Amino acid sequence: MTEIFNKRESIEQVEESPAFAPKFDTNGLIPVVTTDYSSGEVLMQGYMNKEALTKTLELGEAVYFSRSRKVLWHKGKTSGLVQKVKQIRIDDDQDCVWLRVDVQGGASCHVGYRSCFYRSIPFGKDFDPNHIALKFEENEKVFDPTDVYGDAPNPTIL
Amino acid sequence: MTEIFNKRESIEQVEESPAFAPKFDTNGLIPVVTTDYSSGEVLMQGYMNKEALTKTLELGEAVYFSRSRKVLWHKGKTSGLVQKVKQIRIDDDQDCVWLRVDVQGGASCHVGYRSCFYRSIPFGKDFDPNHIALKFEENEKVFDPTDVYGDAPNPTIL
Repeated sequence: MTEIFNKRESIEQVEESPAFAPKFDTNGLIPVVTTDYSSGEVLMQGYMNKEALTKTLELGEAVYFSRSRKVLWHKGKTSGLVQKVKQIRIDDDQDCVWLRVDVQGGASCHVGYRSCFYRSIPFGKDFDPNHIALKFEENEKVFDPTDVYGDAPNPTIL
Repeated sequence: MTEIFNKRESIEQVEESPAFAPKFDTNGLIPVVTTDYSSGEVLMQGYMNKEALTKTLELGEAVYFSRSRKVLWHKGKTSGLVQKVKQIRIDDDQDCVWLRVDVQGGASCHVGYRSCFYRSIPFGKDFDPNHIALKFEENEKVFDPTDVYGDAPNPTIL
Protein backbone atom coordinates (compact mmCIF):
# COMPACT_ATOMS: atom_id res chain seq x y z
CA MET A 1 0.00 0.00 0.00
CA THR A 2 1.30 3.43 -0.94
CA GLU A 3 1.82 5.79 1.98
CA ILE A 4 -0.40 8.72 1.06
CA PHE A 5 -0.09 10.74 4.24
CA ASN A 6 2.20 13.66 5.02
CA LYS A 7 4.33 13.89 8.14
CA ARG A 8 2.86 16.23 10.77
CA GLU A 9 5.37 19.07 10.91
CA SER A 10 3.77 22.17 12.40
CA ILE A 11 0.46 23.48 13.70
CA GLU A 12 0.25 25.83 10.73
CA GLN A 13 0.78 22.96 8.27
CA VAL A 14 -1.84 20.79 9.98
CA GLU A 15 -4.49 23.49 10.49
CA GLU A 16 -4.06 26.01 7.69
CA SER A 17 -2.57 24.19 4.69
CA PRO A 18 -3.82 21.71 2.09
CA ALA A 19 -1.36 19.06 3.36
CA PHE A 20 -3.11 15.82 4.29
CA ALA A 21 -1.48 14.77 7.58
CA PRO A 22 -4.03 12.81 9.62
CA LYS A 23 -3.25 11.76 13.20
CA PHE A 24 -3.81 8.10 14.07
CA ASP A 25 -4.05 7.26 17.77
CA THR A 26 -1.82 4.83 19.68
CA ASN A 27 -3.92 1.96 18.26
CA GLY A 28 -3.38 3.25 14.72
CA LEU A 29 -6.99 4.45 14.44
CA ILE A 30 -8.76 7.71 13.60
CA PRO A 31 -12.42 8.29 14.61
CA VAL A 32 -14.94 8.75 11.79
CA VAL A 33 -18.34 10.45 11.99
CA THR A 34 -20.74 9.35 9.27
CA THR A 35 -23.78 11.44 8.33
CA ASP A 36 -26.55 11.03 5.78
CA TYR A 37 -25.76 13.40 2.89
CA SER A 38 -29.36 14.55 2.36
CA SER A 39 -30.79 14.62 5.92
CA GLY A 40 -27.59 15.50 7.82
CA GLU A 41 -28.52 12.85 10.40
CA VAL A 42 -25.57 11.21 12.18
CA LEU A 43 -25.77 7.55 11.15
CA MET A 44 -22.83 6.07 13.03
CA GLN A 45 -19.41 6.71 14.50
CA GLY A 46 -16.61 4.31 13.66
CA TYR A 47 -12.86 4.05 13.22
CA MET A 48 -10.42 3.71 10.31
CA ASN A 49 -6.80 2.64 10.22
CA LYS A 50 -4.47 3.86 7.44
CA GLU A 51 -5.53 1.06 5.13
CA ALA A 52 -9.27 1.61 5.66
CA LEU A 53 -8.92 5.35 5.02
CA THR A 54 -6.88 4.74 1.86
CA LYS A 55 -9.42 2.18 0.59
CA THR A 56 -12.32 4.55 1.32
CA LEU A 57 -10.63 7.28 -0.72
CA GLU A 58 -9.90 4.88 -3.59
CA LEU A 59 -13.32 3.18 -3.71
CA GLY A 60 -15.64 6.04 -2.79
CA GLU A 61 -17.40 3.62 -0.41
CA ALA A 62 -16.98 3.54 3.37
CA VAL A 63 -14.40 1.04 4.63
CA TYR A 64 -13.92 1.02 8.41
CA PHE A 65 -11.70 -0.93 10.78
CA SER A 66 -13.79 -3.15 13.05
CA ARG A 67 -12.42 -2.93 16.59
CA SER A 68 -14.44 -5.96 17.75
CA ARG A 69 -13.43 -8.20 14.83
CA LYS A 70 -10.01 -6.56 14.17
CA VAL A 71 -10.45 -6.58 10.38
CA LEU A 72 -11.13 -4.14 7.56
CA TRP A 73 -14.89 -3.73 7.30
CA HIS A 74 -16.34 -2.74 3.93
CA LYS A 75 -19.66 -1.50 5.31
CA GLY A 76 -22.66 -3.10 3.60
CA LYS A 77 -20.84 -6.08 2.07
CA THR A 78 -22.97 -8.43 4.23
CA SER A 79 -26.16 -6.40 4.57
CA GLY A 80 -26.16 -4.75 1.13
CA LEU A 81 -26.40 -1.37 2.88
CA VAL A 82 -23.27 0.10 1.24
CA GLN A 83 -22.37 3.72 2.11
CA LYS A 84 -21.57 5.69 -1.07
CA VAL A 85 -19.28 8.60 -0.20
CA LYS A 86 -20.49 12.02 -1.36
CA GLN A 87 -17.89 14.05 0.52
CA ILE A 88 -15.08 13.42 3.02
CA ARG A 89 -13.86 16.14 5.37
CA ILE A 90 -11.08 16.33 7.92
CA ASP A 91 -11.06 18.52 11.03
CA ASP A 92 -8.72 21.34 12.10
CA ASP A 93 -6.08 19.21 13.86
CA GLN A 94 -6.70 16.30 11.46
CA ASP A 95 -7.58 13.73 14.12
CA CYS A 96 -11.17 13.08 12.99
CA VAL A 97 -12.84 12.31 9.64
CA TRP A 98 -16.37 13.36 8.64
CA LEU A 99 -17.92 11.11 5.98
CA ARG A 100 -21.05 12.31 4.17
CA VAL A 101 -22.77 9.34 2.53
CA ASP A 102 -25.80 8.06 0.67
CA VAL A 103 -26.91 4.71 2.09
CA GLN A 104 -28.42 2.25 -0.33
CA GLY A 105 -31.36 0.76 1.59
CA GLY A 106 -31.58 3.65 4.05
CA ALA A 107 -30.31 1.91 7.20
CA SER A 108 -26.90 1.98 8.88
CA CYS A 109 -27.39 0.34 12.24
CA HIS A 110 -26.82 -3.35 12.99
CA VAL A 111 -29.81 -3.26 15.37
CA GLY A 112 -32.03 -2.48 12.36
CA TYR A 113 -32.63 1.25 12.75
CA ARG A 114 -31.87 3.97 10.19
CA SER A 115 -29.32 5.64 12.47
CA CYS A 116 -27.36 4.08 15.33
CA PHE A 117 -28.45 7.09 17.40
CA TYR A 118 -32.09 6.06 17.77
CA ARG A 119 -32.42 7.08 21.46
CA SER A 120 -32.19 10.48 23.16
CA ILE A 121 -31.14 11.33 26.72
CA PRO A 122 -33.30 13.71 28.81
CA PHE A 123 -31.43 16.88 29.86
CA GLY A 124 -31.88 20.33 31.43
CA LYS A 125 -35.29 20.62 33.13
CA ASP A 126 -36.02 16.97 32.18
CA PHE A 127 -32.79 15.76 33.83
CA ASP A 128 -33.36 13.72 37.01
CA PRO A 129 -30.09 12.21 38.29
CA ASN A 130 -32.06 9.50 40.10
CA HIS A 131 -34.01 8.35 37.08
CA ILE A 132 -32.82 8.64 33.49
CA ALA A 133 -34.91 6.86 30.86
CA LEU A 134 -33.69 6.98 27.27
CA LYS A 135 -36.41 7.91 24.76
CA PHE A 136 -36.76 6.08 21.45
CA GLU A 137 -36.68 8.66 18.63
CA GLU A 138 -37.08 6.03 15.90
CA ASN A 139 -40.09 3.78 16.37
CA GLU A 140 -39.67 1.24 13.62
CA LYS A 141 -36.74 -0.84 12.48
CA VAL A 142 -35.91 -0.50 8.77
CA PHE A 143 -34.85 -4.15 8.56
CA ASP A 144 -34.85 -7.28 10.69
CA PRO A 145 -31.24 -7.96 11.74
CA THR A 146 -31.77 -11.72 11.99
CA ASP A 147 -32.85 -11.80 8.30
CA VAL A 148 -29.79 -9.80 7.27
CA TYR A 149 -27.02 -11.06 9.55
CA GLY A 150 -28.36 -14.52 10.48
CA ASP A 151 -26.40 -15.88 13.41
CA ALA A 152 -23.30 -13.67 12.93
CA PRO A 153 -22.03 -12.50 16.34
CA ASN A 154 -23.36 -9.15 17.59
CA PRO A 155 -20.53 -6.55 17.44
CA THR A 156 -21.52 -4.82 20.68
CA ILE A 157 -18.94 -5.22 23.47
CA LEU A 158 -20.17 -4.84 27.05
CA MET B 1 -21.21 13.83 42.07
CA THR B 2 -24.12 11.40 41.85
CA GLU B 3 -23.47 8.31 39.76
CA ILE B 4 -26.22 8.52 37.15
CA PHE B 5 -25.16 5.63 34.92
CA ASN B 6 -26.42 2.05 34.91
CA LYS B 7 -24.13 -0.96 34.92
CA ARG B 8 -23.78 -2.60 31.49
CA GLU B 9 -25.45 -5.97 31.97
CA SER B 10 -26.48 -7.43 28.61
CA ILE B 11 -26.54 -6.61 24.91
CA GLU B 12 -30.32 -6.42 25.04
CA GLN B 13 -30.23 -3.95 27.93
CA VAL B 14 -27.63 -1.75 26.20
CA GLU B 15 -29.18 -1.80 22.71
CA GLU B 16 -32.91 -2.25 23.14
CA SER B 17 -33.87 -0.76 26.53
CA PRO B 18 -34.24 2.76 27.98
CA ALA B 19 -31.40 2.07 30.48
CA PHE B 20 -28.63 4.67 30.26
CA ALA B 21 -25.42 2.65 30.42
CA PRO B 22 -22.71 4.51 28.48
CA LYS B 23 -19.30 2.92 27.90
CA PHE B 24 -16.27 5.00 28.81
CA ASP B 25 -12.95 3.89 27.30
CA THR B 26 -9.81 2.92 29.23
CA ASN B 27 -9.07 6.64 29.68
CA GLY B 28 -12.55 7.22 31.10
CA LEU B 29 -13.73 9.05 27.98
CA ILE B 30 -16.60 8.73 25.51
CA PRO B 31 -16.41 10.34 22.04
CA VAL B 32 -18.94 13.07 21.24
CA VAL B 33 -20.09 14.24 17.80
CA THR B 34 -21.51 17.76 17.81
CA THR B 35 -23.74 19.01 14.98
CA ASP B 36 -25.51 22.28 14.30
CA TYR B 37 -29.20 21.75 15.13
CA SER B 38 -30.51 23.71 12.16
CA SER B 39 -27.99 22.95 9.38
CA GLY B 40 -27.00 19.42 10.46
CA GLU B 41 -23.36 20.34 9.82
CA VAL B 42 -20.80 18.50 11.96
CA LEU B 43 -19.15 21.24 14.01
CA MET B 44 -16.63 19.26 16.03
CA GLN B 45 -15.78 15.94 17.60
CA GLY B 46 -14.68 15.88 21.21
CA TYR B 47 -14.66 13.74 24.35
CA MET B 48 -16.48 13.71 27.69
CA ASN B 49 -15.66 11.96 30.95
CA LYS B 50 -18.44 11.03 33.40
CA GLU B 51 -18.36 14.43 35.03
CA ALA B 52 -18.50 16.35 31.70
CA LEU B 53 -21.45 14.26 30.50
CA THR B 54 -23.31 14.75 33.80
CA LYS B 55 -22.67 18.52 33.71
CA THR B 56 -23.84 18.72 30.08
CA LEU B 57 -27.10 16.98 31.00
CA GLU B 58 -27.61 19.26 34.04
CA LEU B 59 -26.73 22.54 32.34
CA GLY B 60 -28.05 21.98 28.82
CA GLU B 61 -24.75 23.44 27.54
CA ALA B 62 -21.86 21.42 26.11
CA VAL B 63 -19.14 20.58 28.64
CA TYR B 64 -16.28 18.48 27.23
CA PHE B 65 -13.11 17.03 28.70
CA SER B 66 -10.04 18.62 27.13
CA ARG B 67 -7.48 15.91 26.39
CA SER B 68 -4.70 18.46 25.77
CA ARG B 69 -5.35 20.47 28.96
CA LYS B 70 -6.77 17.56 31.02
CA VAL B 71 -9.59 19.66 32.49
CA LEU B 72 -13.36 20.04 32.14
CA TRP B 73 -14.00 22.42 29.29
CA HIS B 74 -17.25 24.39 29.29
CA LYS B 75 -17.19 25.22 25.59
CA GLY B 76 -17.57 28.93 24.89
CA LYS B 77 -16.63 30.19 28.37
CA THR B 78 -13.57 31.93 26.87
CA SER B 79 -14.83 32.71 23.37
CA GLY B 80 -18.48 33.38 24.21
CA LEU B 81 -19.42 30.75 21.63
CA VAL B 82 -21.48 28.60 24.03
CA GLN B 83 -23.18 25.49 22.59
CA LYS B 84 -26.82 25.33 23.74
CA VAL B 85 -27.99 21.72 23.68
CA LYS B 86 -31.20 21.08 21.71
CA GLN B 87 -31.01 17.27 21.81
CA ILE B 88 -28.59 14.59 23.04
CA ARG B 89 -28.58 11.10 21.58
CA ILE B 90 -26.67 7.91 22.35
CA ASP B 91 -25.80 5.17 19.88
CA ASP B 92 -26.76 1.48 19.81
CA ASP B 93 -23.90 0.14 21.96
CA GLN B 94 -23.79 3.38 23.99
CA ASP B 95 -20.14 4.20 23.29
CA CYS B 96 -20.73 7.50 21.45
CA VAL B 97 -22.81 10.63 22.13
CA TRP B 98 -24.41 12.84 19.47
CA LEU B 99 -24.97 16.42 20.63
CA ARG B 100 -27.29 18.65 18.57
CA VAL B 101 -26.63 22.30 19.45
CA ASP B 102 -27.31 25.94 18.66
CA VAL B 103 -24.09 27.93 18.74
CA GLN B 104 -24.32 31.50 19.90
CA GLY B 105 -22.04 33.42 17.53
CA GLY B 106 -22.13 30.73 14.84
CA ALA B 107 -18.58 29.40 15.14
CA SER B 108 -17.22 26.29 16.87
CA CYS B 109 -13.64 25.99 15.70
CA HIS B 110 -10.60 27.38 17.52
CA VAL B 111 -9.02 28.21 14.13
CA GLY B 112 -11.91 30.65 13.53
CA TYR B 113 -14.12 28.70 11.13
CA ARG B 114 -17.80 27.82 11.61
CA SER B 115 -17.08 24.09 11.65
CA CYS B 116 -13.81 22.34 12.51
CA PHE B 117 -14.32 20.33 9.31
CA TYR B 118 -13.52 23.17 6.90
CA ARG B 119 -11.47 21.07 4.46
CA SER B 120 -12.44 18.14 2.22
CA ILE B 121 -10.29 15.27 0.93
CA PRO B 122 -10.41 14.32 -2.79
CA PHE B 123 -11.64 10.75 -3.39
CA GLY B 124 -12.78 8.31 -6.08
CA LYS B 125 -11.86 9.62 -9.55
CA ASP B 126 -10.19 12.65 -7.93
CA PHE B 127 -8.00 10.45 -5.71
CA ASP B 128 -4.32 10.52 -6.67
CA PRO B 129 -2.19 8.62 -4.12
CA ASN B 130 0.86 10.63 -5.17
CA HIS B 131 -0.74 14.01 -4.67
CA ILE B 132 -3.54 14.75 -2.22
CA ALA B 133 -4.43 18.41 -1.70
CA LEU B 134 -7.12 19.24 0.82
CA LYS B 135 -9.74 21.68 -0.48
CA PHE B 136 -11.03 24.52 1.69
CA GLU B 137 -14.84 24.31 1.86
CA GLU B 138 -15.17 27.40 4.05
CA ASN B 139 -13.47 30.45 2.67
CA GLU B 140 -13.82 32.94 5.47
CA LYS B 141 -13.14 32.75 9.16
CA VAL B 142 -16.09 33.75 11.35
CA PHE B 143 -13.77 35.28 13.96
CA ASP B 144 -10.10 36.08 14.46
CA PRO B 145 -8.71 33.58 16.97
CA THR B 146 -6.04 36.00 18.24
CA ASP B 147 -8.79 38.49 19.19
CA VAL B 148 -10.75 35.79 21.01
CA TYR B 149 -8.08 33.62 22.62
CA GLY B 150 -5.16 36.08 22.79
CA ASP B 151 -1.97 34.17 23.53
CA ALA B 152 -3.64 31.05 25.04
CA PRO B 153 -1.81 27.94 23.84
CA ASN B 154 -3.16 26.29 20.68
CA PRO B 155 -4.87 22.98 21.64
CA THR B 156 -3.62 21.10 18.56
CA ILE B 157 -1.15 18.31 19.38
CA LEU B 158 1.21 17.23 16.63
